[in-house]
Amino acid sequence: MAQKPSIPKGTRDFTPAEVSKRNYITTVMRKHFEHFGYQPIETPSFENSDTLMGKYGEEGDRLIFKIINSGNYFYNKTKIDLPQSIQELQTNSAETITLEQRVELNKFTAKISEKALRYDLTVPFARYVVQHQNEIEFPFKRYQIQPVWRADNPQKGRFREFCQCDADAIGTKSLWQEVELVQLYDAVFTELGLQGCTIKINNRKILSGIAEVIGASDKLIDFTVALDKLDKIGEEGVKKEMQQKGISPEALVKLQPLFDFVGTIEEKIEKLKTLLENSTEGKKGIEELEFICTHVLQLGLQSSCLDLDVTLARGLNYYTGAIFEVSAPKGVSMGSIGGGGRYDDLTGIFGLKNMSGVGISFGLDRIYLVLEELQLFPNEVTTGTKVLFLNVSEEKAFLALQTILKLRKNNIKAELYPDTAKFDKQFKYAEKRNIPFVVKDVSPDSFELKNLISGEQTTLNFSELTTVLQ
Amino acid sequence: MAQKPSIPKGTRDFTPAEVSKRNYITTVMRKHFEHFGYQPIETPSFENSDTLMGKYGEEGDRLIFKIINSGNYFYNKTKIDLPQSIQELQTNSAETITLEQRVELNKFTAKISEKALRYDLTVPFARYVVQHQNEIEFPFKRYQIQPVWRADNPQKGRFREFCQCDADAIGTKSLWQEVELVQLYDAVFTELGLQGCTIKINNRKILSGIAEVIGASDKLIDFTVALDKLDKIGEEGVKKEMQQKGISPEALVKLQPLFDFVGTIEEKIEKLKTLLENSTEGKKGIEELEFICTHVLQLGLQSSCLDLDVTLARGLNYYTGAIFEVSAPKGVSMGSIGGGGRYDDLTGIFGLKNMSGVGISFGLDRIYLVLEELQLFPNEVTTGTKVLFLNVSEEKAFLALQTILKLRKNNIKAELYPDTAKFDKQFKYAEKRNIPFVVKDVSPDSFELKNLISGEQTTLNFSELTTVLQ
Repeated sequence: MAQKPSIPKGTRDFTPAEVSKRNYITTVMRKHFEHFGYQPIETPSFENSDTLMGKYGEEGDRLIFKIINSGNYFYNKTKIDLPQSIQELQTNSAETITLEQRVELNKFTAKISEKALRYDLTVPFARYVVQHQNEIEFPFKRYQIQPVWRADNPQKGRFREFCQCDADAIGTKSLWQEVELVQLYDAVFTELGLQGCTIKINNRKILSGIAEVIGASDKLIDFTVALDKLDKIGEEGVKKEMQQKGISPEALVKLQPLFDFVGTIEEKIEKLKTLLENSTEGKKGIEELEFICTHVLQLGLQSSCLDLDVTLARGLNYYTGAIFEVSAPKGVSMGSIGGGGRYDDLTGIFGLKNMSGVGISFGLDRIYLVLEELQLFPNEVTTGTKVLFLNVSEEKAFLALQTILKLRKNNIKAELYPDTAKFDKQFKYAEKRNIPFVVKDVSPDSFELKNLISGEQTTLNFSELTTVLQ
Repeated sequence: MAQKPSIPKGTRDFTPAEVSKRNYITTVMRKHFEHFGYQPIETPSFENSDTLMGKYGEEGDRLIFKIINSGNYFYNKTKIDLPQSIQELQTNSAETITLEQRVELNKFTAKISEKALRYDLTVPFARYVVQHQNEIEFPFKRYQIQPVWRADNPQKGRFREFCQCDADAIGTKSLWQEVELVQLYDAVFTELGLQGCTIKINNRKILSGIAEVIGASDKLIDFTVALDKLDKIGEEGVKKEMQQKGISPEALVKLQPLFDFVGTIEEKIEKLKTLLENSTEGKKGIEELEFICTHVLQLGLQSSCLDLDVTLARGLNYYTGAIFEVSAPKGVSMGSIGGGGRYDDLTGIFGLKNMSGVGISFGLDRIYLVLEELQLFPNEVTTGTKVLFLNVSEEKAFLALQTILKLRKNNIKAELYPDTAKFDKQFKYAEKRNIPFVVKDVSPDSFELKNLISGEQTTLNFSELTTVLQ
């Protein structure tokens, strides 16, 4: 009967210290989300499959976790209609599956599975907005901190279950939202003690403008996808990929200024104005970018830097205006710890048109790793119980619990060791649990307190005990 | 392309007000869990199927949501070995599926699904304890607040996704844990303003003792299951069911005192001592019960009542000692809002023997409904933004954001209306969002503030503004 227990690959158990640290980060996020007027919503862990399927591309569809119908679909059925092509698979010795068979298999999967686990928070948010449009007062500013699931191949730092933390404002085209989202990043990172993050900004319209002026408008997606890889494959790699996708050598020459873009934000904007003077869309992008950057700089940031990065592309196709990406402070090797942008038609897929929105996301797992590396978690975060009362007899235990009850009313985390075990064992428990104080003996108003850090030992009355522990 | 969006039956979207109220309840729980020395852990949403299957009975197995392997198991496969009996199902015209076919179908399900969504927090906790036994310092007191999923038929108050809130102490037989868990219930309900909850207590050993003295030891489970239905089917219904299960009329006569059990806890204990004088196990149960009740009463409860209910049985078979169940204050029609008990061998299924534990659970959804019915949610819980700055021009909007930045540093939730819309529209937004204050006009150090509740309008400088809003 006994099994050697394990968990599915790509998932994690979180220990008390890990949960406390993660909660510390999300508590800071929640606080600032709410300071900025974002309201919390939550959506179900699984959605109807047709809400999710087809929204993330073919690769996305494959990575969505599908749930078998009704707990056990096959129970109490007399007949299962397996498609002919699936039956053929049983005897077919061909190495590969045909496209037709794949389509049949997808249909079969859809038949036995009508629900799927949330792949991100954006599509469920769009679904929520459309479904509840008559109750919502627009513009609607919401935040959402919930797990998502992807059947990705697990790697270092990539999990099959992970938490997303998103803030989006939908139903307004106001660029003040972009200004505030940059401030929101800055407020969260500042409170977390993460000095010197770089908030990179660009605009999809500028990328369209560039594609236009180099004569590659018809290859905008290939162009964006290649540019997005700059961090990973470098300038030469990007150029090579663009060439492979059919972007001409002349166009690549025109593109060169992008790779050599230096100077202040103002100087970069001036250069862009020259580069894009013949593109209406490009000029619109510059105008938006200028509004956002100017106001962010005038209002000032607390600890982050704003940087205009014209090579920033971001993969997701639904972005139409500003795009953001955040890098951890220099010296920490970590990919982006946040990103986002404006999308003009996210809710269109569910039938609600003309709902422009803009949002950002925080990468909880990566922020966690950065705070850990820079030792920025405050000690209090993982300090649980403040004082352990040793258990020496039933009578003393009762006195201890009387005191503990009063301490807890004073917001002091206090515990009685459950059993009358050996002193050694009880002290070891306190040490392993990082409990800083131990009450060795208790009388109705006299407490023998030991500080486990300094080793100091004192005898106190209740009021003194409370003072020391607070 | 447009779809009419909906969510799977038995699941829920939570609006901002609902999330805020739910977070208020769980924040109170977390605070007291930690005051009592319980530490938070989190486990993955899905477990390996063999961790969950077979742990909740046949009915439970059916209600577990199963996930199709690897996002899409059928992709890139050349061959799927469908069992012979499943293929026969396709042409078989018989109305019912045979037992053998059902077994084959279960095997097939297990083949296409190796993961399943968590059904409760108890089995994953047992798995966690066994898997991490070398890192854990026992006794281990953990709490866990996470969603669980059951493919139950949705009904009023019964959902397919719901949140469980559990606190368990494992690795100690000390009855002080039971004493503290009663206090923990009392602390949480008191802080939530829920006066007059009844914490019912009983002991499985007493139930065994009773079954023994009425000569029905071999029918202990039938006896317990029937007794558990007392609230639903009444005394006569319970007796009828017991009779059907083969408990003799003589035994039922002996059982009568249980249904007429009145008096103080002390008096009830005395009666039990007489009733169970010939049962060793029964006497052990009374001893445990007496320890717990006496100490709880001596230490005192803040707002809840303790009640010894000898008809309390609780369905779960793993309980071996104390069992608890909490009723909402009288006058509120609601099933139990919490329950728990001691189990001597929960981790045994995963190969770790002799780990006695005790735990309680809070019913978040039901507590929510009770607080709502009794109007016990504090107003602040759903007050989000404190002040909205109207947006009248780009220049004023900039001044507003300068001020808002400073207000937020003073922990005041403040927003700028994103667009320069009509005043009416902006005021309506503030009203719908329950924002109590509106700044109608802003100059570098002069603010025209309107209190939307009183209608009062004043002109203030920044320091006065901050004071009013705090």
